[in-house]
This record gives sequence, C-alpha cells and structure tokens, in this order.
Amino acid sequence: MRERVRSLVDASWFQSGVITLILVNGVILGVETSPRAMAAHGELLHAVDVVILFLFVVELGMRMYAHRGEFWRDPWSWFDVVIVGIALLPTSGPFAVLRVLRVLRVLRLLSVIPSLRHVVAGLFRALPGMMSILFLVMLLLYVSAVMATKLFADVSPDYFGDLPSSLFTLFQIATADGWGGIAKDVMEHRPTAWVFFVVFVLVSTLVALNLFIAVAVEALEKDDGDQSREEGGGGVLAGAAPDGGGPDSGHAVILAELRALRAEVAVLRREQEGLRS
Amino acid sequence: MRERVRSLVDASWFQSGVITLILVNGVILGVETSPRAMAAHGELLHAVDVVILFLFVVELGMRMYAHRGEFWRDPWSWFDVVIVGIALLPTSGPFAVLRVLRVLRVLRLLSVIPSLRHVVAGLFRALPGMMSILFLVMLLLYVSAVMATKLFADVSPDYFGDLPSSLFTLFQIATADGWGGIAKDVMEHRPTAWVFFVVFVLVSTLVALNLFIAVAVEALEKDDGDQSREEGGGGVLAGAAPDGGGPDSGHAVILAELRALRAEVAVLRREQEGLRS
Amino acid sequence: MRERVRSLVDASWFQSGVITLILVNGVILGVETSPRAMAAHGELLHAVDVVILFLFVVELGMRMYAHRGEFWRDPWSWFDVVIVGIALLPTSGPFAVLRVLRVLRVLRLLSVIPSLRHVVAGLFRALPGMMSILFLVMLLLYVSAVMATKLFADVSPDYFGDLPSSLFTLFQIATADGWGGIAKDVMEHRPTAWVFFVVFVLVSTLVALNLFIAVAVEALEKDDGDQSREEGGGGVLAGAAPDGGGPDSGHAVILAELRALRAEVAVLRREQEGLRS
Amino acid sequence: MRERVRSLVDASWFQSGVITLILVNGVILGVETSPRAMAAHGELLHAVDVVILFLFVVELGMRMYAHRGEFWRDPWSWFDVVIVGIALLPTSGPFAVLRVLRVLRVLRLLSVIPSLRHVVAGLFRALPGMMSILFLVMLLLYVSAVMATKLFADVSPDYFGDLPSSLFTLFQIATADGWGGIAKDVMEHRPTAWVFFVVFVLVSTLVALNLFIAVAVEALEKDDGDQSREEGGGGVLAGAAPDGGGPDSGHAVILAELRALRAEVAVLRREQEGLRS
Repeated sequence: MRERVRSLVDASWFQSGVITLILVNGVILGVETSPRAMAAHGELLHAVDVVILFLFVVELGMRMYAHRGEFWRDPWSWFDVVIVGIALLPTSGPFAVLRVLRVLRVLRLLSVIPSLRHVVAGLFRALPGMMSILFLVMLLLYVSAVMATKLFADVSPDYFGDLPSSLFTLFQIATADGWGGIAKDVMEHRPTAWVFFVVFVLVSTLVALNLFIAVAVEALEKDDGDQSREEGGGGVLAGAAPDGGGPDSGHAVILAELRALRAEVAVLRREQEGLRS
Repeated sequence: MRERVRSLVDASWFQSGVITLILVNGVILGVETSPRAMAAHGELLHAVDVVILFLFVVELGMRMYAHRGEFWRDPWSWFDVVIVGIALLPTSGPFAVLRVLRVLRVLRLLSVIPSLRHVVAGLFRALPGMMSILFLVMLLLYVSAVMATKLFADVSPDYFGDLPSSLFTLFQIATADGWGGIAKDVMEHRPTAWVFFVVFVLVSTLVALNLFIAVAVEALEKDDGDQSREEGGGGVLAGAAPDGGGPDSGHAVILAELRALRAEVAVLRREQEGLRS
Repeated sequence: MRERVRSLVDASWFQSGVITLILVNGVILGVETSPRAMAAHGELLHAVDVVILFLFVVELGMRMYAHRGEFWRDPWSWFDVVIVGIALLPTSGPFAVLRVLRVLRVLRLLSVIPSLRHVVAGLFRALPGMMSILFLVMLLLYVSAVMATKLFADVSPDYFGDLPSSLFTLFQIATADGWGGIAKDVMEHRPTAWVFFVVFVLVSTLVALNLFIAVAVEALEKDDGDQSREEGGGGVLAGAAPDGGGPDSGHAVILAELRALRAEVAVLRREQEGLRS
Repeated sequence: MRERVRSLVDASWFQSGVITLILVNGVILGVETSPRAMAAHGELLHAVDVVILFLFVVELGMRMYAHRGEFWRDPWSWFDVVIVGIALLPTSGPFAVLRVLRVLRVLRLLSVIPSLRHVVAGLFRALPGMMSILFLVMLLLYVSAVMATKLFADVSPDYFGDLPSSLFTLFQIATADGWGGIAKDVMEHRPTAWVFFVVFVLVSTLVALNLFIAVAVEALEKDDGDQSREEGGGGVLAGAAPDGGGPDSGHAVILAELRALRAEVAVLRREQEGLRS
C-alpha cells in the first residue's frame, strides 16, 4: 500500500499536476485582488480556492504517509506544511493579516521545481559567509541612527524624529535613494551636517562593496573546488587515481605514477647489481 | 550566376555599402522626429527612406538567392527579414504603432558588423544561465505585488491600486528608485508597512546580487574553459598530446609521457631478466 | 599577581561579560533618544550608564596592567582607550558634540568579537590598494567643482553657489542620486550644460567601476595566494616537498621527484657501462 | 649643457617643486571661485597665477630642450602642453569658456605623479575592450530615443519633446535616477508606455552588467597573465626552463624533464641490447 502511494506521489505526472494546481491557484489569488472580478465571480473563485487548498492538504497527507520519517527531515517539507497550514488558520479578528499570507502558497513552486530549489538553496548557502559583514552593517546602522537622532531630531523630525525613523531613513540613504534631498533638508539648519552624511554614504558603500566581494570570492572559490573535484573524478575514470579525487588530484595522479616508476627503476638497479656481482 | 551574386554579396565593399545605407537611414529616421525638418524637407526625407528600404529588400533578395538554405538557418537572417518586413506592412489604422518600429531598422547594424554580432550573441548565451533566477525574480515580484495590493490598495491607490500598478511600483522599488518616498507615503497610514518594504528591498538586492554573481562566475568559467582549450591546443602543436586537448590536457600530456616511460622501463627490466637467466 | 589578572582578563566568561555590558550600554544609549523614556526613567538610565562606564574603565585598567607594553602595541587597544576616553571628557560648553560621540562605545563590539575584528581589518587592508584611485576621485571632484562653480554659480546658486556646495552636489551626482533633476535645473538657463553632466556621470562611473575591479582583483589574488600556500602546505604534509611550500609547490614536488629519478637512471647507466666494459 | 638641464629636470627635488606649484595653483583656482576672496585679494591671486603659469611654461621649455624628440613621443607631454597652452590663449570674447578650462591645470598632477599615471593608463587600457559594448549602448540609446520621441513627444514634451531631450532622458533612466516618476508621467496619457520603460530598464541593466563583466574578466585575465609570467620567470631562476617562460611553463619544464629522462632510458635500453647480443 505505502509503496503504491509512494510511486504515485513521486510520478512525474503527479508533480506536473501539483505545479499546474499551484499556477492556477496563483492566477486566482491575483484575480481576487480585482474588486470587479470579485463582484462578478467572487463565489466561483472562492470555491476553486477551497478545492485547490483541499487538494494540497490531500497531497501533503499522501507524501507524509508515503515518505514517513524522511518527509520530516526535508526542510522543504516543513516549508510546504507551514505554507499550507497558514491557509487553514482562521482569518477573522486579529488574524486578518494571515489572509494576505495565503498568497505565499504560490511560493510552493520553489519546493516543487528542482531548478528553483537549487537557486534558493544557493542563496541560503551564501548567507553564513556574509553573517559577520551583515552584523557589522546592522551595528553601523544602529550607532549612526542613535547619533542622527541626537543630532537632527529637532531640525528634521520627519526623517530623524525618533530612533525607528532614523533607522529607516539611514537604511534608505544606504541604498542611495534620495539621500541628497534629505541631507540638504538637514543642512539648512545644521550646515556641518554634510560631514555625517558624506561619511555615512562612503562607509556604507565601502562596506557594501566588501560584502559583495566576500560573496563573489566565496562563490568563485566554491566553483573552483567543484571544478577540481570534477577533474579528480575524471582522473578516477581514466583509471589511475589511487587517492580518490582530492582537491588537487591531477598532481596526485602524476606523483603516484612517478613514484611507481622510481620504485621500478630501483628494482632494475638492484637486479643489475645482482647481475654484476 | 549564383556564384557571382554570392561573391558580390560577400564582398567587403558591398558590406560597407550596406553599413553606410543603415547609418544614413538612421540619421534620416532621427531627423524625421523634428517637426521643423519635416515641414521643410519632409518629402525628400520620405523619398530617401523609400529608396533605402527598396535597396534593403533587393539586398536581402540577393542574399536569399546566393545562400539559399543556408540563409534561413542563420538566426541573424530572420532578424533582418523581420526588421525589413515591418517596414513593408501597412501603417494605417490599427497598425500605426508599426510606424514607430521602423526605427528598429538601425539595429541591422548588429547583424552586419561582426564585433557587435559577437557582443549580442554573448548576451544571449548568458540568458539560459540566468533563467532560473529570472523566474525566481518574477515569482517574488508577483507574490509581493498580490500582497501589496491586498495590504495597501486602499491607502495608496496611486502606487498599489491594482495588480498591474503594484507590479510596476515594486519593479521600480527593486531598482532602488524613489522607494523611500513611496514607503513613507504608505507608512503614514500603515505604520508597520516598513517591514514589507525593508524585506522587499533586502530580498531583491540579495537576489540581484546572486543573479549578478551567477552570470560573472559563468563568464569566468567559460573564459577558463577557453583558456585551457587553448593550452590543450598548444600541447597538440607541440606534438605530444595523444588525447586531443581535453579540459585538462596539460596534465594529460604529462601522464601519457609518464606511462610511455614506465612501459619502456618495464621492457628494460624484462630484457634484463632475460639477460640474467 | 599580574599572571592572575591576565588569566582573569583573558577568560572567556570575562569577554562574554564585556560583550553583554556593551550590548546593554547600546540599548540604554538607544532608549536615551526617546524623550518619553528619559522623562520617566532618565535618572536610572543615567546611573546605569555611569556604572557601565566605570566598569569599562576598570576593565581597560586591568588589561593595561596585565598586558603592559603589549597592550599599547595593539591598535585595537588604542581604539578602546580613545572610545572610553571620549566619555570621560567634559561635555558642557563647546564640547557638547562629544556627548553624541558617546554612542561610539557600542563600536567596542568590533574590538571584542574576533570575527568582526577580522572583517574590519580586511576593510583596512583593502584601503592602501585603492589610495591612488581615491586620490584620483578627489582630484576629479575638486577640478569639476571649481569648473561647475565658475559655470553655474549664477544660474543655480542652491547647488553650485560656492565651492563647498559644488563639491557636495557633485558627490551627490557621483552616487547617481537625483542628478537628472539637478541637471535639468541648470539646463533651463544653460542649454549646453548637459555636456558637463553627462561627461561627469560617465567619468565618475568609469572610475568607480575601476576602483571596484581593482579591489576585487586584489581580493581574489590574495585569496589565490592563500590557496596555493595551503596546497604547498598539503604537499609538505604528504611528506615530499623539499622546497618548503613555494607559490607553486605542486609542480615543484613533481620536478624534484623527476630529477631524483633521472639521477637514479644516470647511476644505472653508468653501472651498466661499467658492466659492459 | 643639454645634459645639465636634463639632470636638473629629472631631479626629484625639481619634480617635488612642480607638484608643489600645481597644488598651490589648484588652491588659488579654488579660492578664485569665492567673490569675497576675489574682492579682497583679487590682484594678488591673479599675480601668483601668472607667475605660476610662467614657471610652467619655463619648465615645459626646459623639458622640451632636455628630452628633444623623446619629449614629443610621450603622450603625457602632449597632455601637459595642451593644458598649459589653454591658459595662454586669449579668454576674451568668444573664448570666455577657455577661462573655465584653466582649472584643468590641476590635472597636471596626473602626469607628474607616477602612481596616478598608472591608474589613468589602466583606465585607458580598459577602453578598447569595452568599445563594442559602448557602441551597442549608444546604438540602443539612439534607437530608443527616436522611438520615445515619436511615441511620447506630444504627451511629455519636457522629457521627450525632441531627439536631444529624449537622449538625455533615456541616459538618465539608464542610470536608474528618477525613472519611476518619468514613466508615471507618461503613463498617465499612454497607459501602455510601461512596456517601453520596463524593457528599456531591463535591457540597459543587462547590457551594463555585461559591460561590467567584460571589463572585470579582462582585468582578471591580464592579472593571470602577469602571474603566470612571473611563475615562468621563477622557473628560469630555478635553472630548468628551456623554453624561456611561456604562458604555462610550469608544465613545460616538467615535460622537458620527462622527455630528457625518456631519451636517457632509450639509450640505456639500446646499450643493454648491445650487451645482450
């Protein structure tokens, strides 16, 4: 029984069906944003939505039954369960915002289509490498926001009135969006404020540049690693790598070959010495 | 006959003539945008335009006749045919927009000048590598637009009134153009909206960064491939590569050399054993 | 005695305590920006601030006593001393701005957490490599600002009224923030001003691009250096590198092996010749 | 005589003197932008300016005399002559704009300080590699501007009224500065205009990305070339490279060594065969 459900769940036509359902669901969720469409076909759209949600629940149930423990070990399964679960929660009263999160269901495409899975996994793999720099960014943002609030709260309450406003404004300045206008605004009352803004723009650009380069270097390194592993693998296929494909096995194969040769020459020499005597 | 047309079409002075025609045509199409110039020399400009179009049709006809099947197998020929064809379509009534597309004729420079051809071909080669990430971008844009429409349609109808408006606004925010003002606008009524905007800016920047790095790594890799292929080729020219220039043929040449040497030493040893006995 | 203070200062729980103090201090400095919180708990906050400052002074005193000369040789110690010292200066009268700089105390996290130390050290290491380009940038900015002031001071006094205004405006244009509006403003009175702005945007983008690439290439190079050093080290561990891990010791190991082999074959040949005679 | 002038001109204190003069001149040109300073010390500033200009002419004359033909073969000399020459031209009447270009004299620092010379030379070396892509960019800009003028001249005369306006506006959009506002402006009357703007932003970003990567790959390649040349040189120093340091001489050294070994083994074998018979 479990075997049959499993082969059903893993069949490619079943996967295609799920993808189709997600796409249809996505279109419906988009159409639901139009008041006119809702007025005309609201009930139909809602009914289809409920049916698709039901099918998602059934599909997840089948996959849980088929894969058992394995299912819960895959983080993508958790992703699916949480996203489908959100749609099952009551959306009345204080939970009204959950109604908006229902559109996240379209993101199930990420867990269903393998190439998207790879891309997202790659993004998450890149995260730890930038943790230190991200923390540094947040630290600089916080320190700058406290300073900006103390310095400019009275002259530019819109932008630097309190700490959250300052944090938002400085984040905006770090993306180089409209910072000139904000700085001019403040500089009307505090002519020396340009020091703060120019230093902040320069430092945030420098840090962003280094964040970028750190990620790029890591990506290129990983790529190099992959490549030499492949080369090593190629060496194994060519039938001559005794070391099983290390990070530099092209050289290792040659070295092994050389040492075997040297051993053979040593034997030759010993025999010749035997011959001589 | 076909041979003579072919040598004519492929002659470098013929190519130069076509390039000159395209440039003249480009200048005329630019001048035509000026009402004053049109009032003064409108008929002359139009006449030259028609003559050049006629020459383009003749040139394409000659190339079709000269290269036959080959002509249709080159995507650049299709590009030329479509672009010249647009100018032959009627531009009255519902097709008035086609009149604007006539300026695309200047893009024939892309198909005629080889170095531009290379650049454009390079751009298209880079596309498949970014397909997954581009699809991810569009998915995130769609999901965010549905959410933004549901959340902000009532407080900021200009920016998030319906799904197309939201899509356009979020695309604009993803290019970091004026997002601070838009977010401030929404935050006046929904103070917690900053969560949505900051997350969207961070995620779209992170994804764009990864898109960029993916393309750069691919470009560098291809470059490396080209280089080692060249190295391999050098090995072949040096007369010692039995494997025909694989991705790592520098090592392969050395390995082949080593194995030949080892075989020779083995022969030496067998002979010595024969000598001994 | 000094030994005991040293082991105390270097203990990991002591470090964790300092980090906690810095974080608490950071939160307090943030809360102090809120007038409402200051009205309610101003005295308490101030008291905690003074206690933490006192603990910082004690901690620095202990580290000075424990590490003696070593303490002053570490630039991070100077950083700590300056930052804590700022808080001890009088902040009345003309030194009121120092009160704002007290928040820099949160940056002590940079000197206490090793991974942040690495990131900041990396940023500073990247600086000398960009010095020439940064000087070039400043030179271009200065020359452009003098020209812009002479050309546009009368038509756009807000943006180009005097040299400092021009410098600020051109820095803003170099970050591509709102340059279109500024240029339009000037072009209303000086229609040919677009030449200046387009050239400035192109040159500053080109220089920024080169600054970026210079830093990236340096980062990748350093990385390559690190990697091959590691490879060299690996060779030493594998027990066969007579040259101690140079920049290309993979090849060097193979060469050494080859030369040993050739020497052995030469001995073999000499012996054989002896046998022959 | 010529020898003495030459050693004078090439002396390091002479160079330092020229640098000092340029810096002083730069400061004076900056001060001259201030009406107040001009009112107070205008005549003094002008006198110093004339003296420094005279010294520059003398210095160039000495370098011309000392280096003769060599002087005119160095493009930097031309740069110096043109820049100093501008200051000697009459600046009255139609040549008033030349007065502004006098500040370019500060750029003589580029030709005098070697490290700046390197940076600028690097920038110019990068140019040919981007020529094709830059031409493509200009072609796309021109075609888009013609289309935009035809489509939007009537609804947005400020931005797209004629071909030059459209070119400027599209250049601005390509730098992602305020494009959202411009597009909104046009879309009020032409709701489908978003197609044009979104396509233009995407294509110009894609092309800019490729321009960037092309330059970066070239920079890295050149760097690689430099490095392997260095490695090759190291091989020569180690006394074993018979091929004089090609692009992959690490491998070449090993191959040469291997072939010598194989030849030796072949001799050994022939001798043994002689022994046998």
